[in-house]
Amino acid sequence: MKPRVVVNGIGTVGKRVAHAVKKQDDMVLYGVADVAPTPDLRSNLMGPLEGTKLFCSVPNEKENMEEAGFDVEGNLPDVLEGNVDIVIDATPSGIDKKNRSMYRKKGVKAVFQGGAESSIAPVSFNALANYDEAKGHDFVRVVSCNTTSLSRTLWSLDKTTGVERAVANLVRRGGDPSQDSRGPINSIVPVTDIPSHHGPDVQEVMPELDITTLAVKVPTTLSHLHMINVDLTSKATREDILHTFRSTPRIKLFRAEDGYTSTAKIIESFRDRRPRNDMPEVAVWEETVEVQGKRAYWMHQVHQESIIVPENIDAIRSMLEMTERDDSMERTNVNLGIE
Amino acid sequence: MKPRVVVNGIGTVGKRVAHAVKKQDDMVLYGVADVAPTPDLRSNLMGPLEGTKLFCSVPNEKENMEEAGFDVEGNLPDVLEGNVDIVIDATPSGIDKKNRSMYRKKGVKAVFQGGAESSIAPVSFNALANYDEAKGHDFVRVVSCNTTSLSRTLWSLDKTTGVERAVANLVRRGGDPSQDSRGPINSIVPVTDIPSHHGPDVQEVMPELDITTLAVKVPTTLSHLHMINVDLTSKATREDILHTFRSTPRIKLFRAEDGYTSTAKIIESFRDRRPRNDMPEVAVWEETVEVQGKRAYWMHQVHQESIIVPENIDAIRSMLEMTERDDSMERTNVNLGIE
Amino acid sequence: MKPRVVVNGIGTVGKRVAHAVKKQDDMVLYGVADVAPTPDLRSNLMGPLEGTKLFCSVPNEKENMEEAGFDVEGNLPDVLEGNVDIVIDATPSGIDKKNRSMYRKKGVKAVFQGGAESSIAPVSFNALANYDEAKGHDFVRVVSCNTTSLSRTLWSLDKTTGVERAVANLVRRGGDPSQDSRGPINSIVPVTDIPSHHGPDVQEVMPELDITTLAVKVPTTLSHLHMINVDLTSKATREDILHTFRSTPRIKLFRAEDGYTSTAKIIESFRDRRPRNDMPEVAVWEETVEVQGKRAYWMHQVHQESIIVPENIDAIRSMLEMTERDDSMERTNVNLGIE
Amino acid sequence: MKPRVVVNGIGTVGKRVAHAVKKQDDMVLYGVADVAPTPDLRSNLMGPLEGTKLFCSVPNEKENMEEAGFDVEGNLPDVLEGNVDIVIDATPSGIDKKNRSMYRKKGVKAVFQGGAESSIAPVSFNALANYDEAKGHDFVRVVSCNTTSLSRTLWSLDKTTGVERAVANLVRRGGDPSQDSRGPINSIVPVTDIPSHHGPDVQEVMPELDITTLAVKVPTTLSHLHMINVDLTSKATREDILHTFRSTPRIKLFRAEDGYTSTAKIIESFRDRRPRNDMPEVAVWEETVEVQGKRAYWMHQVHQESIIVPENIDAIRSMLEMTERDDSMERTNVNLGIE
Repeated sequence: MKPRVVVNGIGTVGKRVAHAVKKQDDMVLYGVADVAPTPDLRSNLMGPLEGTKLFCSVPNEKENMEEAGFDVEGNLPDVLEGNVDIVIDATPSGIDKKNRSMYRKKGVKAVFQGGAESSIAPVSFNALANYDEAKGHDFVRVVSCNTTSLSRTLWSLDKTTGVERAVANLVRRGGDPSQDSRGPINSIVPVTDIPSHHGPDVQEVMPELDITTLAVKVPTTLSHLHMINVDLTSKATREDILHTFRSTPRIKLFRAEDGYTSTAKIIESFRDRRPRNDMPEVAVWEETVEVQGKRAYWMHQVHQESIIVPENIDAIRSMLEMTERDDSMERTNVNLGIE
Repeated sequence: MKPRVVVNGIGTVGKRVAHAVKKQDDMVLYGVADVAPTPDLRSNLMGPLEGTKLFCSVPNEKENMEEAGFDVEGNLPDVLEGNVDIVIDATPSGIDKKNRSMYRKKGVKAVFQGGAESSIAPVSFNALANYDEAKGHDFVRVVSCNTTSLSRTLWSLDKTTGVERAVANLVRRGGDPSQDSRGPINSIVPVTDIPSHHGPDVQEVMPELDITTLAVKVPTTLSHLHMINVDLTSKATREDILHTFRSTPRIKLFRAEDGYTSTAKIIESFRDRRPRNDMPEVAVWEETVEVQGKRAYWMHQVHQESIIVPENIDAIRSMLEMTERDDSMERTNVNLGIE
Repeated sequence: MKPRVVVNGIGTVGKRVAHAVKKQDDMVLYGVADVAPTPDLRSNLMGPLEGTKLFCSVPNEKENMEEAGFDVEGNLPDVLEGNVDIVIDATPSGIDKKNRSMYRKKGVKAVFQGGAESSIAPVSFNALANYDEAKGHDFVRVVSCNTTSLSRTLWSLDKTTGVERAVANLVRRGGDPSQDSRGPINSIVPVTDIPSHHGPDVQEVMPELDITTLAVKVPTTLSHLHMINVDLTSKATREDILHTFRSTPRIKLFRAEDGYTSTAKIIESFRDRRPRNDMPEVAVWEETVEVQGKRAYWMHQVHQESIIVPENIDAIRSMLEMTERDDSMERTNVNLGIE
Repeated sequence: MKPRVVVNGIGTVGKRVAHAVKKQDDMVLYGVADVAPTPDLRSNLMGPLEGTKLFCSVPNEKENMEEAGFDVEGNLPDVLEGNVDIVIDATPSGIDKKNRSMYRKKGVKAVFQGGAESSIAPVSFNALANYDEAKGHDFVRVVSCNTTSLSRTLWSLDKTTGVERAVANLVRRGGDPSQDSRGPINSIVPVTDIPSHHGPDVQEVMPELDITTLAVKVPTTLSHLHMINVDLTSKATREDILHTFRSTPRIKLFRAEDGYTSTAKIIESFRDRRPRNDMPEVAVWEETVEVQGKRAYWMHQVHQESIIVPENIDAIRSMLEMTERDDSMERTNVNLGIE
């Protein structure tokens, strides 16, 4: 029997992962759950999640959702046991921690998201870097968008030329497109702790890596952008690095020369081709890959809303020991149209 | 034989109209044309326009596009005669005017866009308001996004309660999402001519209408928003107006109460459900429809990139006398998923 | 003896009013008060408020401010009685209401700001429109920035040509320049109640006025902008309206033709000439003043941070019955360099 | 006789430098020049430059400016010879190059700005780093805002602990506050050349320095922000670096803990205290200064409009051999209120 998955929390991450689970052929979306009749829930049940069973995440909000016109099958805690193998928990930070006890009691596994503290699960997960570590675990945490992008690029470099030390400078978006109560409007807000929390978070995935991250927040909603410099263990050419990035899954190269001159220009190209202009790949600007002796530089763009979607799918396969890393990543990529 | 359509200019408007033509069952997309290997062209030929014949809009750029990896069938002027019935011209303002002579010489009809001067064609078109006027014409101009939204709402009110006078206050987006060389970053830029050009443009479609428009430009990319006040010819209730809007095609009501509290929130709901988050409907906030005696107020949101797409399709049917207004609009709406 | 004034709350409004009180020759700034060692407090005590006595607004925060390096004279409640005639209360909404009881107990008068509910004081004040009504009162509320701008322009028109009915469409800034936790970043947020609260607030000042306001919030920090249409009681020419605006204090005309083409361009001109780029005048774009028979249109810009500063000064003079309206406004204007 | 200075081009830089020249006691502002009746010119002649002689930069625009109400003394080229010792050229890039020939013919020295190519003058200037090199030269170019900030911080570090290698990641503002035709609105635009031009420009000032710069442009107008990592020649503590920065003129430390948590918050504090909220100092966030062995990190904020103002004044003194570096910098700082 195919494993049955529930996605709890249909917001930015949850709606995408639920849609992604539906597209896989070796697992089944048993249902989705939320606590309120939000626009996200409404538009997804009218669109890509049409026909999916809806549960109420907590007992006392069912009526409220029904009054708003939703068909609610029941309360999530009541159905988990026996019907569901694994929950993707995409609820807000704080709630996820409370949910963990419930999942344990009900005997279902759970994948948490990068907003949670790393202590929520024994493994912080990135498919490329540590797929095997999640095997058989009950609880796994998929690391955040920024951390995922750094894990992919730095892991691939580390496996080829070796990474002596990395410094990543993160220019973060202020909020997602629909989070219009968030700023800043006309300001740059630095994270004044150095390293920002992203560096230690990458080290949850790659404990040996010497990495320091600096971060600021700027008035844009579309993407993060990272400026990275790395000391390599061994000499490499620009073409070596490009080759590494080209041959690593979920890293995609773009050329400014072809018109991909900004985060908005790259996102626009996916508006034409993919639901919600999703870009689960890290986008590296080819021209920015520069090597000086044993130093390498590049910039990449991170679509904060979707980059962790394939990692959630792979986490399921690893935790349920369904298949090996390369096979899992390949299936996920094909099913999601990742290039 | 089904009429054969070419779309010339694969930018914001052209790519959407080409895609929309493909979705109709009573016309055929013969091909698309452009002058340069842009990201828009690339992503559409990899996506929704896959398999579509590509032409070079002008003779001397074919090689350049081929070098960039595009398969170019030939130059547009060479194939128009005999193969094509009508061109959707979505080229930049100024170019469209030059193209008109060529189209005439080649004996093909053409639809121009709202960026062109109204003198480019004898009819300025909105499907609801003046479908019949375009019948049989060689050249028609579909009015701009702002004008289209005003034509729909004001025409529907005028047919029911009557409009004595209208004042529309336009809060316009600074640029489209990928136009990142356009501002303003942190400023409001007024159009200091009153009326702005939009009022007279609505009168091209509804010559009897007493309308004045005021316009400003603000730092957002997602949508325009209009604040409108109207003196009605006869008394009406709030429910009358809501009923009018609800029963008019291509007007859609949203409730802030349901979470649709901003332009971004409404666009987000279409990211989940439609390619490129397109919203060819005018979105009226239900709560903003207010009536005081013979005065009515409301606010609506205009998705500048897609609102004119269905109008282009209907213009084709009218010019080629393929069918009547209501049938054409209904077909377009069904084929494009307009609610 | 000159009346002694305290300003309680040294934020956006309070710091400006304190500075303005210092510039008058018929009143004395006894001191300022706040509850925390903020950047606003620091930079003003290093700059325009150097040498001013500092009090702690509430008893238990004095130590905290002293640890941060501020010299605190004492707690505000302890000094009010006998030393202070009037308090400008520029504390956050909610706090102001609690303060009122304290002021009453201590026997000092107080001016509240437009963020407070109108019930906080028997008079909602605008110098031009109802100076005399505040005379002798213990508590007066200076209306908000948007309301102040509308009161000035509409009162002046009403006194000359008469205003039958007004509709004001407000394009509001998302936050002040340093409020970088406020959005929206890339969205337009409508107030879906019509009228927005601004219309009724103007009617607190001009009870007979038929006015409806609509409002949206946009991603800018510099200014609000209003688009206004008015039905006049009697016919007027464009020149009549311009003459009215030109001869009314605290209304200033700008011409786009001279390069003042946006809110940012107008603010820039005051960066060169005034502290904090303050513009207590309403700025009307001359080109936007348009008359069609008995209808008039215009757009004006409102500097949300400073427009209410002169009104606070005039409110003091009225409440303490120091002088008559025109004399008070003239003194304030001269002392503050208002043109 | 005190040297007589003319400022040619009263835009963002020119208006500030003219004002700064007026504040010095060892030089005289002979006049200012421009080609059009701009808002900048108007507000400065009504404000800080009141009474200053105005010239027309080119012969044929005098009448136009006079018609706009300006008193024009004459054409700049006619008065340079014999009356003027040095011109601050703050004209747009391209124009400055043409002007150089004219200045040479007229026998006046000239200071160009960082927007000019470095070839415009034999010396690229930063007061701290290479004051002496400008001595006696006819033409000097003050480096740009970004380069100036890097020259100050890196020069000071290099003189103390030594700098082995520096990587600076520049998050640049899209445009100045009044440049509202510039974007990007909702995008991050990378400079895809690595190094960006800023690195080589720093090397014009400090030829021995190993520095690489990466740069992006974001939707803000207030300031640039740099994230910097440096390999030091010798070990140092965090306190060493802080001490170096504290004891270097024109570097100012701010603590997020005190409420200076963003570029807007820091700028706001200067709105209260200085004309045009100018901040000629580089602002380093104290908390971001971090040392790990021989690596140091920090972030600083660059007020693009004013940071080069004191450097222009010092360039004059060096070129005219009026005094030595430390004396010149000290005079400039005192006269401009630089802390």
